[in-house]
Amino acid sequence: MTVMQAFGDWMKTVQANMEDALASYLPEATHVPARLHDAMRYAALDGGKRVRPLLVFAAGELFDADDSALGRAAAAVEMIHAYSLIHDDMPCMDDDALRRGKPTVHVEYDEATALLAGDALQSQAFIVLTEGESDAARKLEMIRLLAQAAGSAGMCGGQAIDLASVGMTLSLAELEQMHRLKTGALLRASVLLGALCGKALTESETAALDAYANAIGLAFQVVDDVLDATADSATLGKTAGKDAADNKPTYVSIMGLEQSRILAEELRNDAHRALMPFGNKARRLRELADLIVQRKT
Amino acid sequence: MTVMQAFGDWMKTVQANMEDALASYLPEATHVPARLHDAMRYAALDGGKRVRPLLVFAAGELFDADDSALGRAAAAVEMIHAYSLIHDDMPCMDDDALRRGKPTVHVEYDEATALLAGDALQSQAFIVLTEGESDAARKLEMIRLLAQAAGSAGMCGGQAIDLASVGMTLSLAELEQMHRLKTGALLRASVLLGALCGKALTESETAALDAYANAIGLAFQVVDDVLDATADSATLGKTAGKDAADNKPTYVSIMGLEQSRILAEELRNDAHRALMPFGNKARRLRELADLIVQRKT
Repeated sequence: MTVMQAFGDWMKTVQANMEDALASYLPEATHVPARLHDAMRYAALDGGKRVRPLLVFAAGELFDADDSALGRAAAAVEMIHAYSLIHDDMPCMDDDALRRGKPTVHVEYDEATALLAGDALQSQAFIVLTEGESDAARKLEMIRLLAQAAGSAGMCGGQAIDLASVGMTLSLAELEQMHRLKTGALLRASVLLGALCGKALTESETAALDAYANAIGLAFQVVDDVLDATADSATLGKTAGKDAADNKPTYVSIMGLEQSRILAEELRNDAHRALMPFGNKARRLRELADLIVQRKT
Repeated sequence: MTVMQAFGDWMKTVQANMEDALASYLPEATHVPARLHDAMRYAALDGGKRVRPLLVFAAGELFDADDSALGRAAAAVEMIHAYSLIHDDMPCMDDDALRRGKPTVHVEYDEATALLAGDALQSQAFIVLTEGESDAARKLEMIRLLAQAAGSAGMCGGQAIDLASVGMTLSLAELEQMHRLKTGALLRASVLLGALCGKALTESETAALDAYANAIGLAFQVVDDVLDATADSATLGKTAGKDAADNKPTYVSIMGLEQSRILAEELRNDAHRALMPFGNKARRLRELADLIVQRKT
């Protein structure tokens, strides 16, 4: 991948790279138990914008990481993301029938298979991170980072707060805290995992990436809330207007549509500012911040 | 712990050791999100015979492992076990209301919390294995072993086969294959993780431990089936007779009660034989094989 590539071409290259890595790191659908493996592949392959893998590769480019290490890191993050979507869509959680324009896993298969496919995808993510040639200490750091981002101090914790806040009035600070865990933690992990595939980071580099990741993490959620309130299901590939219907607090419900849009722009500027020390090498991360804020789905 | 201790005393020491390790490696119930952390602790603490932790410590003793490393390994294995029980008990799986004499997590809390508590316990297990002073390469090996034992080629895969075989007639070989994954993989991981906390293993030592682990893994399930068919719920601390009621193939349904008991004894002998090269140092592993076959609950 060259820095001279147009952003759209770079994205396509990474997405293809990523799809190959994911396909090879997932168990074959022909292996027993075939239905479980099929459900894992159904959930993880051929779907989504691959924002997290794009972040992995963009951060990796900044630190001269090699593509095979980035493919593993991206596949691992995406497996965690895919598992969380399967479980979130289940009847006892958001009870959603549509995801990425396809029936959700528990609808296409059954609830028990959905539960197990999510569970097994989580295990698989950690298996993938143990592979490859790189330094054992570095791999261990990546595993710890991803496990913390996935667990009760990260994504699962954010989900739990989300569930508890249905029908409640949250302050902006509480809403931010929830999203920092629910989606922010894994987006941050994506950036840091990508960077860790390359050279060792200085403290100030880690801090700059953290600031970037925090800004795009929140921006991602603000834009999600705006889209949920304004786009239709066909465009989103998932059920639109769910948050309001479920009586969930969102940026739009707390600060209104216009202020939410302004906040997203501010966060984009924060993200760009955080990247300044890296100069032009951070181009892809900058472009991804733009993508996250300007996306229509 | 000394080799001179009586088995019962040794078990109590390990169980207490283990409970401390688990309590310290689980997130505090006072930390946000409190309900999630409370559910994780409810599921993992103060319950069960701790067969897997006992195997970790017994195998560790054989290779002169230190107690803090064993505590971490045992806590990690037990978190995976606890998460699997939470998910197995959910309505879309076995739909069970009673576990270890207490209401199951989805009954005591709610289904969504049960789902998330299981998910977060899995992440927490891998976090724990990244900790401590030991060699990074060794830790990585332990993480890989546990993740494989937990995932689709292990426990989750076995669960999937189990679900698919309700109402089916399985051959003995198929039943064995299912249990090798469903419970055997994690029991095997317990033995190997304990050993890996100590000295590096030779190939023949690994093979001997593998043979031992395979034998007790199957024995464990055969005895489980016998108990499910013969004991009452109050004794078991979980709903008895579920397998027959659910029309699940078991050792008892395939080979009858008497043959199942004979098979359990044979497997105990296999386990003892596998340990012969280790001499008296394998005493605890031998005693655990006896415990697994002779247990009444």
